[in-house]
Amino acid sequence: MGVKVYGIPHSTATLRVLAAIHEKELEYELVPVDLRSGAHKQEPFISINPFGQIPAFEDGDLTLFESRAITKYIAYTNEGKGTSLISKQGKEMANLAVWMEVEAHQFDPVSTKLSWELVYKGFFGMEIDNAVVEENEAKLAKVLDVYEVRLAKSKYLAGDSFTLADLHHLPGFQYLNGTKVKHLFDERPHVSAWCKDILARPAWEKVMALQKQA
Amino acid sequence: MGVKVYGIPHSTATLRVLAAIHEKELEYELVPVDLRSGAHKQEPFISINPFGQIPAFEDGDLTLFESRAITKYIAYTNEGKGTSLISKQGKEMANLAVWMEVEAHQFDPVSTKLSWELVYKGFFGMEIDNAVVEENEAKLAKVLDVYEVRLAKSKYLAGDSFTLADLHHLPGFQYLNGTKVKHLFDERPHVSAWCKDILARPAWEKVMALQKQA
Repeated sequence: MGVKVYGIPHSTATLRVLAAIHEKELEYELVPVDLRSGAHKQEPFISINPFGQIPAFEDGDLTLFESRAITKYIAYTNEGKGTSLISKQGKEMANLAVWMEVEAHQFDPVSTKLSWELVYKGFFGMEIDNAVVEENEAKLAKVLDVYEVRLAKSKYLAGDSFTLADLHHLPGFQYLNGTKVKHLFDERPHVSAWCKDILARPAWEKVMALQKQA
Repeated sequence: MGVKVYGIPHSTATLRVLAAIHEKELEYELVPVDLRSGAHKQEPFISINPFGQIPAFEDGDLTLFESRAITKYIAYTNEGKGTSLISKQGKEMANLAVWMEVEAHQFDPVSTKLSWELVYKGFFGMEIDNAVVEENEAKLAKVLDVYEVRLAKSKYLAGDSFTLADLHHLPGFQYLNGTKVKHLFDERPHVSAWCKDILARPAWEKVMALQKQA
């Protein structure tokens, strides 16, 4: 019996959890949640996540929500399997903590707004707000400037190995890669090499194959 | 030689770090950063935090930024001292991770907007945007509804003991407590008892005494 993920493979937060599961080579079941009928705002879903957002997660009688809490749980409770994804030593643990917070508070808010404008609005036939795009494109450039300096010093954000700090960026990269802000990544050699490297990970390719089938 | 915190005692993120330091009873030095002259956007500060935001942190030759990464580092590297603040066991660790993410992604964005409108704008003589207040007051009510259910089941967010998941809320509570949204806390008995309990912690009272002197 594997773990269960409640979500859909077009949601960035669900993809984040699936990436961690595939890196750890865990058995799992993806249980679809019908967002159109509002299943995520009703029982039984809200018994798992009272905030009514996907994904949610089940491991036996333990239920969890918030994608980055789920990835941490997966990484810490499956230490011997697949990719390590974490560091538990002083300085490396500290750098992992810093760069996970950077993803959550510096990268993600900007990436989410740009994905909404440049990707999701297209699905729903909504009009793009160019002022929001411009503002967030400028913010993303500044964030990536910091990443460029960091990645000139270490191969991955938290140090020499791929960790959750890198993995958490994958869904955002994947979406922004197909938009006009791609040049912001391409223009920065270390950021560009890092993006290509992590997007080519076999675990992520498996997640993307799953998305294409959906 | 203790650790160094670069920041000011009126910044919520700086207060979060000071709360963790006082819970751990660590020696430290608070190094003021002159935000008015833009010291946080210049060297030497941006060598520690390239995003130019307070607080930053130094422990010997290790430098860190992002308040929640600093509190984690403090909690994990000072296990034997003061309050534990963390859980390392499976289910409790998982719940700690979930409720730390809830603070960061559900509570903090709303609390930050309300504090800006109802507290900081007053300092700067700026006009309050009532539409923003109304929207975020409604959001805060929904977040606190979820907290009320959670806190009816466990004394603190992550379980039976006070952890970083609770501590990270303290600066936001302290500011909102003095505003017209206080009633949202008072109306919910478990939330109200929890707020009173954590705001009365001796470590937090020391941090508040420090703020009054500043």
